[in-house]
Amino acid sequence: MPGNSFGEIFRITTFGESHGAAIGVVIDGCPAGLKIEKKYLQQELDRRKPGQSKITTQRKESDEVEILSGIFEDTTLGTPISLLIKNADQRSSDYEHLKNVYRPSHADFTYQEKYGTRDYRGGGRASARETAARVAAGAIAKKLLEKIARVKVQAFVSSVAHLTLEKDYTAFKLSDAEKNIIRCPDPLLAEKMIKFIDRIRKEGDTVGGTVSCVIQNCPAGLGEPVFDKLHADLAKAMLSINATKGFEYGSGFSGVKLRGSQHNDLFEKKGRKIITKSNHSGGIQGGISNGMDIYFKVAFKPVATIMQQQDSVTSEGKKTALKGKGRHDPCVLPRAVPIVEAMAALILADHLLRNNSIKLSAFMNRK
Amino acid sequence: MPGNSFGEIFRITTFGESHGAAIGVVIDGCPAGLKIEKKYLQQELDRRKPGQSKITTQRKESDEVEILSGIFEDTTLGTPISLLIKNADQRSSDYEHLKNVYRPSHADFTYQEKYGTRDYRGGGRASARETAARVAAGAIAKKLLEKIARVKVQAFVSSVAHLTLEKDYTAFKLSDAEKNIIRCPDPLLAEKMIKFIDRIRKEGDTVGGTVSCVIQNCPAGLGEPVFDKLHADLAKAMLSINATKGFEYGSGFSGVKLRGSQHNDLFEKKGRKIITKSNHSGGIQGGISNGMDIYFKVAFKPVATIMQQQDSVTSEGKKTALKGKGRHDPCVLPRAVPIVEAMAALILADHLLRNNSIKLSAFMNRK
Amino acid sequence: MPGNSFGEIFRITTFGESHGAAIGVVIDGCPAGLKIEKKYLQQELDRRKPGQSKITTQRKESDEVEILSGIFEDTTLGTPISLLIKNADQRSSDYEHLKNVYRPSHADFTYQEKYGTRDYRGGGRASARETAARVAAGAIAKKLLEKIARVKVQAFVSSVAHLTLEKDYTAFKLSDAEKNIIRCPDPLLAEKMIKFIDRIRKEGDTVGGTVSCVIQNCPAGLGEPVFDKLHADLAKAMLSINATKGFEYGSGFSGVKLRGSQHNDLFEKKGRKIITKSNHSGGIQGGISNGMDIYFKVAFKPVATIMQQQDSVTSEGKKTALKGKGRHDPCVLPRAVPIVEAMAALILADHLLRNNSIKLSAFMNRK
Amino acid sequence: MPGNSFGEIFRITTFGESHGAAIGVVIDGCPAGLKIEKKYLQQELDRRKPGQSKITTQRKESDEVEILSGIFEDTTLGTPISLLIKNADQRSSDYEHLKNVYRPSHADFTYQEKYGTRDYRGGGRASARETAARVAAGAIAKKLLEKIARVKVQAFVSSVAHLTLEKDYTAFKLSDAEKNIIRCPDPLLAEKMIKFIDRIRKEGDTVGGTVSCVIQNCPAGLGEPVFDKLHADLAKAMLSINATKGFEYGSGFSGVKLRGSQHNDLFEKKGRKIITKSNHSGGIQGGISNGMDIYFKVAFKPVATIMQQQDSVTSEGKKTALKGKGRHDPCVLPRAVPIVEAMAALILADHLLRNNSIKLSAFMNRK
Repeated sequence: MPGNSFGEIFRITTFGESHGAAIGVVIDGCPAGLKIEKKYLQQELDRRKPGQSKITTQRKESDEVEILSGIFEDTTLGTPISLLIKNADQRSSDYEHLKNVYRPSHADFTYQEKYGTRDYRGGGRASARETAARVAAGAIAKKLLEKIARVKVQAFVSSVAHLTLEKDYTAFKLSDAEKNIIRCPDPLLAEKMIKFIDRIRKEGDTVGGTVSCVIQNCPAGLGEPVFDKLHADLAKAMLSINATKGFEYGSGFSGVKLRGSQHNDLFEKKGRKIITKSNHSGGIQGGISNGMDIYFKVAFKPVATIMQQQDSVTSEGKKTALKGKGRHDPCVLPRAVPIVEAMAALILADHLLRNNSIKLSAFMNRK
Repeated sequence: MPGNSFGEIFRITTFGESHGAAIGVVIDGCPAGLKIEKKYLQQELDRRKPGQSKITTQRKESDEVEILSGIFEDTTLGTPISLLIKNADQRSSDYEHLKNVYRPSHADFTYQEKYGTRDYRGGGRASARETAARVAAGAIAKKLLEKIARVKVQAFVSSVAHLTLEKDYTAFKLSDAEKNIIRCPDPLLAEKMIKFIDRIRKEGDTVGGTVSCVIQNCPAGLGEPVFDKLHADLAKAMLSINATKGFEYGSGFSGVKLRGSQHNDLFEKKGRKIITKSNHSGGIQGGISNGMDIYFKVAFKPVATIMQQQDSVTSEGKKTALKGKGRHDPCVLPRAVPIVEAMAALILADHLLRNNSIKLSAFMNRK
Repeated sequence: MPGNSFGEIFRITTFGESHGAAIGVVIDGCPAGLKIEKKYLQQELDRRKPGQSKITTQRKESDEVEILSGIFEDTTLGTPISLLIKNADQRSSDYEHLKNVYRPSHADFTYQEKYGTRDYRGGGRASARETAARVAAGAIAKKLLEKIARVKVQAFVSSVAHLTLEKDYTAFKLSDAEKNIIRCPDPLLAEKMIKFIDRIRKEGDTVGGTVSCVIQNCPAGLGEPVFDKLHADLAKAMLSINATKGFEYGSGFSGVKLRGSQHNDLFEKKGRKIITKSNHSGGIQGGISNGMDIYFKVAFKPVATIMQQQDSVTSEGKKTALKGKGRHDPCVLPRAVPIVEAMAALILADHLLRNNSIKLSAFMNRK
Repeated sequence: MPGNSFGEIFRITTFGESHGAAIGVVIDGCPAGLKIEKKYLQQELDRRKPGQSKITTQRKESDEVEILSGIFEDTTLGTPISLLIKNADQRSSDYEHLKNVYRPSHADFTYQEKYGTRDYRGGGRASARETAARVAAGAIAKKLLEKIARVKVQAFVSSVAHLTLEKDYTAFKLSDAEKNIIRCPDPLLAEKMIKFIDRIRKEGDTVGGTVSCVIQNCPAGLGEPVFDKLHADLAKAMLSINATKGFEYGSGFSGVKLRGSQHNDLFEKKGRKIITKSNHSGGIQGGISNGMDIYFKVAFKPVATIMQQQDSVTSEGKKTALKGKGRHDPCVLPRAVPIVEAMAALILADHLLRNNSIKLSAFMNRK
């Protein structure tokens, strides 16, 4: 019930403040018998880690993952998998100046209001550092999806500020996104985005953008009607990521301008499968996957920590001013890509396991 | 765990197929001692019911609510509140022609894939009829919010197809939305919207649009960090409503084009309260309410049932064509307004109760 | 989270006060495709209903079940099944004298303390009337167990006060229990029990006893290690029934007097199965079923409502005296038998569905 | 949903196999502002650790606790508290002989059946080692109970095999239990128990017994009606502990032999409080605490690992024999005492937080 767990059957619980001893995650509900190597988990974490390029924060953190339980001889046991990432040594003195100040558009004020106390050394649980735990857990979910159903989850940067991928995702080879540091599948646009972010960074400012995600080979039938619709759970998953402001899937906000006669996806038979001619539904109808590609887009605001002086107040309400110190991201987007993938994989793995129980015939076929 | 329950402490479970005996809701976790009159519940339901104006479906259903439990002498007992709405008599023969056909952009196909069976007499659980149960439950949540914290939830239609409310919500008296049948607070725009929908209806087509919602007087501290962020839970709540395609809060998708220096909300002291000068955050920072207005927008696609002939396939995959019969909504927006309010109220009531447990000082002050 | 729901995947929510309009249950998570006839549900309810013999309360209630949703053409849809049992007309005036009095060993006082209010017309949610809803839901769970795995759940009365079934359950034909009104499989002992209860009833007093239950054909592997051990969940299920005081399974409380060398169940191979020679484990090892018979015993205290005058206090703490009116059970045991079966079936059905998700190989075998 | 989490609001998740890298626990939902020193946690763990006396296993493990998150400057933050206990180095070779053998009355067979794989180096999650994580979490729950409501939880050994504490708990000073190594509050009986266990140990055999527990100062109103009755949740908590066979509270199994007129607890006013003259109810009526002492008893079977040769089968079903190696407990009871306390404290803390939300008046009094 408290907010640090996610998922119903494939269920994760993350823990750890950004400037405490460690962050980590417990994954409960992963089926037994799945091959998981530590090396693979580390590769996924490396896609998120700071310091990976000139347009991310220059902080160097190794983010080395330790497997504490649930995996024996490189195979899941069906018991809780616990993964730990130790924090680099933190000098608390670096943060004394933030003890009584509320940073604009951070969670300092709201944490203080909610709890009456907070770990003032940094963002604590509100820090994006917590998402490393999600990426580690998501890596296991991805492996499960691949193993059970060959489901593939691929995210990429679809806009940075005004620089927007104009064409549909089908126009690109999505895996190309991993070939440049902004993770955009269009190499020319990627170049422009990188230059733009670099310019903004030099101004001590930050920018936002969008990450899109495509899920391929998702079997029909995932998602629960009514409240736990597949797209509703994806929306929650995405908006639980730091700095997000919006979510749309399929035709999204622009779909509201179409007529029903334009928007409806007509069924047809193709080989032995029933498919839809168009896919405004984004692969989900009535909250349940229909076997077509699932695609969605997530809005990220510009990073709140800027290298310019800003007005603020102390916890007593006195006027003060503060300026970001240290090495922060001018733009979260490239590092957000693996996080979006991880959250999508977690939702799908959970719904795949949930879907098991509802169709008697499927049950009866099992020994 | 199955998908028909919603909320953690203030928890609802809805039931009922659109063409079965009845639909209803059980509300578990509502505090004892709240005054609830049946008349009040009926008023809220009447805002959602069909046949209320020329731009909604002309079906006449009384949607009369019965209180089965949990309320004694017009006061909640703290025990589960069960509310029932009987369905009008259905002639199954009216639906025989749909038994083996998949209506485009409906959930017929996905239900059949998921369950291997379905109630072919109509949308079943995928029908928007299910939302009447949510509106009834939401009415109780609203009352609770009002009683405990004077929180006010107000939704309105902010666009119909291309017809968009250009100004900020602060430019309008939101309660004016209830004065016209499209539920838009701008009377001139409302007039245009109504005419437009009427035209589309005559063409046998349908349109989409957006509903916006504003929450006032929300205390700071609601929302749980990490996964159950207040805006993440609002997103899920909204996208669990039929026909939705997207959600954004605060600066939303347009916020991604701003710089950090433009987007940050600077704190200042006003009287005894700490507020923010701007409100791009939409009243939520780090997933926790900060005491400012919460506002968000929800995208609704055009209704899938149109009065024009469309191609489709049967459950065996044979080509067929079908055309909507009966009396359907050309546009769901005016009837969606109370549903958006209900879902927002349910999320807030739940988070209000959840927030109780986490701050020891608050606890200690109680006898 | 509030306490009126039970189960994780096969999940029920009950509602209704004993003297309100109706009681009922919503079952969410039952697989689609299960045959359920109303007649069958009614038969199970009739085993619990009042007035069935001279040793139960003489109140006549028809307890007629209505199916509101989730079942179409006598087959489950996979959507929530809602069952309703209307209460017979209650004359509130009959209960005015209880408005301000706390009946000894009832829940009047604790409800008032917890909620600050209560439905004084009777036990409200604390009334055993609520268990009718459980029996209805349990009937569906039983059908599911039978269909998927031929699991059989059989309860019976194993003692009334000092009159105890001395032999092991294997010495009896358990279905014989349904042949007498006390539901004890030993016809001679049953006769003595019935006479004894009849005598106590005439004295205006009540008696307690035990109900035992045997589960046959349970597949190995049900139950989750650590907290949701199968016997831990059975214990909770049983102690959630009104008037219960204790639970033991396998060797139970008497097993504590044995040595390890006496208590251990040695494995052996029988045909193609691995079984245990003895069964002190009661079919559960490490919280997980091992394929042997599961058996357990539940203690029920004597009914609190007696036809003798007792001292008590009013809600203001003034001395008063009260005496039971109306027609109450001198002994709950025969009517408790179907309730014990229902709760056992609900736990098993839930664990059967939960067990689906944890073994990858099982998963891979499915299409 | 998977079985490694416990509690609704004060919620713990444990992880770790007995012979893996570490075991640990994440506590989510503990209120902010509670003082917790590492030293205190270690003291509670030391009450459970092996090697503490001649009647427990002679294995030496330091069981040193590390705080990874959720506590800053010795004060809870309201964020998840993560505690880690590293396992001493394990030589896997010691366990090779168990790889394909099912130990009698252990969970080897059932784990293999459930998961299709297991960590054969030891009991894995079924090992009592997992309970160290519970004791650490329970220590925090105890502190919370003490701080908010001065609730006191005290367990003790009430029988070893046939050696039984004959008098009621009120006849003893319960804290005396900590003065001897068997943890029985009667020093003479304790002496006999210790001698008896020592004799059995020399025979290479093991014994069972019972642990009783008393909860004082519990406020009235804790526990939820219907399924989450306080005693039902206590029963589940206790039976989730390794080696347990039964649970009874208040008059328990012996109460079934009384008449209603003997068993009923009559109310009376004492000072400003309403109390009961007797306490057969064990402090709980209708599933809700009534302010009197809560007391219950838990049955523990004899330890399954004995130092005598026993028949068994291999995973292929071949006959084999095996004999316990190493240093095992001849009797779990003294080490079970802090585990029983921990589980009771976890249930009470959870219900204390849950009870917050249901009474509107309590709500309104808060700022």
